[in-house]
Amino acid sequence: MQPKIAIIGSGAVGAYYGGMLAHSGADVHFLMRADLAAVRERGMTIRTRGETVHLAAVKACATTAEIGPCDLVIIALKATANHALDGLIPPLLHERTALLTLQNGLGNEEYLAARWGAERVMGALCFVCLNRTEPGVVEHFDHGTISVGEFIGGPQARTRQIAEALGAAGIEAQVVENLVTERWRKLLWNIPFNGLAIAAGGATVADVLASEGLRGSARALISEVLDAARRLGHEIEDAFADFQIERSYSMGPYKPSSLIDWELHRPVEVEAIWGEPLRQGVAVGAQMPRLELLYRLLQRLVLH
Amino acid sequence: MQPKIAIIGSGAVGAYYGGMLAHSGADVHFLMRADLAAVRERGMTIRTRGETVHLAAVKACATTAEIGPCDLVIIALKATANHALDGLIPPLLHERTALLTLQNGLGNEEYLAARWGAERVMGALCFVCLNRTEPGVVEHFDHGTISVGEFIGGPQARTRQIAEALGAAGIEAQVVENLVTERWRKLLWNIPFNGLAIAAGGATVADVLASEGLRGSARALISEVLDAARRLGHEIEDAFADFQIERSYSMGPYKPSSLIDWELHRPVEVEAIWGEPLRQGVAVGAQMPRLELLYRLLQRLVLH
Repeated sequence: MQPKIAIIGSGAVGAYYGGMLAHSGADVHFLMRADLAAVRERGMTIRTRGETVHLAAVKACATTAEIGPCDLVIIALKATANHALDGLIPPLLHERTALLTLQNGLGNEEYLAARWGAERVMGALCFVCLNRTEPGVVEHFDHGTISVGEFIGGPQARTRQIAEALGAAGIEAQVVENLVTERWRKLLWNIPFNGLAIAAGGATVADVLASEGLRGSARALISEVLDAARRLGHEIEDAFADFQIERSYSMGPYKPSSLIDWELHRPVEVEAIWGEPLRQGVAVGAQMPRLELLYRLLQRLVLH
Repeated sequence: MQPKIAIIGSGAVGAYYGGMLAHSGADVHFLMRADLAAVRERGMTIRTRGETVHLAAVKACATTAEIGPCDLVIIALKATANHALDGLIPPLLHERTALLTLQNGLGNEEYLAARWGAERVMGALCFVCLNRTEPGVVEHFDHGTISVGEFIGGPQARTRQIAEALGAAGIEAQVVENLVTERWRKLLWNIPFNGLAIAAGGATVADVLASEGLRGSARALISEVLDAARRLGHEIEDAFADFQIERSYSMGPYKPSSLIDWELHRPVEVEAIWGEPLRQGVAVGAQMPRLELLYRLLQRLVLH
C-alpha cells in the first residue's frame, strides 16, 4: 500500500517538496491555514525551471485530525513555531509514523524526539531557493537538493525509501550517514553569513566578503563553530571551513534567507541557528565569544 | 598678559567650554563655519541650569589664519574629522602653543603629537550632557566636569593653570595624573554601552541592562577592555569594572552619545572608541574577540 504523507507547514518549502511528491503520484495531505481556501479553489502551482507544475486536486485540510494517522509526517514549519507541533502531531501518529523535519539549524530533531520518541525522528537539509509568491503558488529558482538522514544511528530502509520517493518526484535526493554532522557543516556557513547579514544592518554575501573586517569576522566565526563541531565528535576537515568562504565569492550580492526574513519582519530562527549551536559548543568547553555576542545582538535585532 | 585661546570645532562641546571661558573674561577665539554668520549677528547663548549666559561680542573667525598664533588651542572636533587639523593647526602655533584635545577615545593625542610634537599635547575628558539646539545656541543639561592631563608625563604648571581657568569659568575641573589611564577608564563604559546601543539596533542603557544576554555581553566586553588596559600598564581596580555596570542602572533609558549621533546620521567615532583600543590591546597580546566583532559591525553600521 502507498505510504500516507502529511506536510505540516505549507510555506514555500512544504509546498514545494510536498507538491512535487503529490505530482509524482504520492499520497500527500497538506495542513493549511492561510492558503486553504485558495488551494481548494485553484489548486497548487509550482513554477520550476521553465516548467509549470499544476495540481488541480490537492488534499488540503485545516486540522491534523482531518488528516489522521500517516506513515510519514514532513515538518516544514519555521523552528520558531515548534510549540505548535505539540497539538498538531498527535492526531497524525500511528505506531510506526516517521517524523521528518526539514527545518534549519539545531534542536528540531531533539524537540520531536523528546515528545514522540527518538526512533521516529528523521531530518533533512534542503538546499533550495524558493519563493511563495501568492497563496498556493511557489516559484522555484534554483537548486533543490535534499539530504535525508536519521536522527539516531545510520540510514535505514525508510531513509532510502524516502530519498527514492523524492528522486521519483524529480528532486535530487541523497541519504546522509550522519545527519547531525551535516547540520554542523551547513551551520559553518549559516552562522557567519546569515548572522553578519543581519547584525551588519543588511549585508549581502558580497558585502561581507568585500569588507576585510567582516570577512575576517566570518572566518573567525567559522573557526569557533568548527572547533565546537569537532568537540562534539563531528569530523569536518579544515578545507571545508575554507571552502565556506571560497564558494561564497560566486554568490555575489546574495541575501541569506535570514536577512530576507528579517527585512520582511518575518520570524528568524535565532535559537536554531545561533542559540543552540552556542549552547551545545559551550557545554563541551568550546570558546565561542564571537558567536555569543552575535547571538545576543540577533536576539534583540529580530524583535524589531 | 592674558593667554590667547582658540577653539577648533564649535559644536556643542567647543561652544560650551569656550563660551564659558569667554564669559569669565578669557581671550577666546572661535573657529566657526556653519554658525559664523548667526554668531556674528546674534552672539552665543548657553542655557545652563536655569541660567542663560549670553555673549554679545564673540571673537569668531572663518579661518585659523585670521585667529593667528595662540597660547592654547582647544580641539573639539569630532575625531572623524582629525584630517582637517593638518591645515587648521599650523597658523595657530607659536613655539610654546599647547594643544588640548577634548575628543573621545584613543589616538587623538597621538595624532597631534605625531604632527606638532608630543610636548605640546594635552587632553581632557569631558563628562557633560549638551545639545546644540540652533546656530550659536547650546543647551547644557547636566554635569560638566572636565579632567585635564598631560599626554607625556605628569601634570605641569600649565595643566593646573588650565584647570584653574576652567574653574574660574564655573566649570568643575580637575587635573589628572595619568590622562591615558583615565581614557581607558572611560572606555570601559563607552566601548560596551555606546557600541551595543548601535549594534543592537538602538538600545538604551536600560535596554542593555534589562536583557540578560546584552548585559552579559557588556560585562564580557568590559573584561576584555580591562585586560587590555592592564597589559598596557594602566592600573584599574576590578571594582571599577563592576561599577561601570552598577552605576548604569540609575541612567534609565539614556541614549549613549554615539547612538544619538548614529540615529541622526552624524559621524560616529568608531576608530577612536573601538578601533584604536582594539589595535592597542591586540598589540600587547590581549584577546579581544568580542570587541573585534563589535568593531567590525560598527564600521559597517555607521556607513548607513
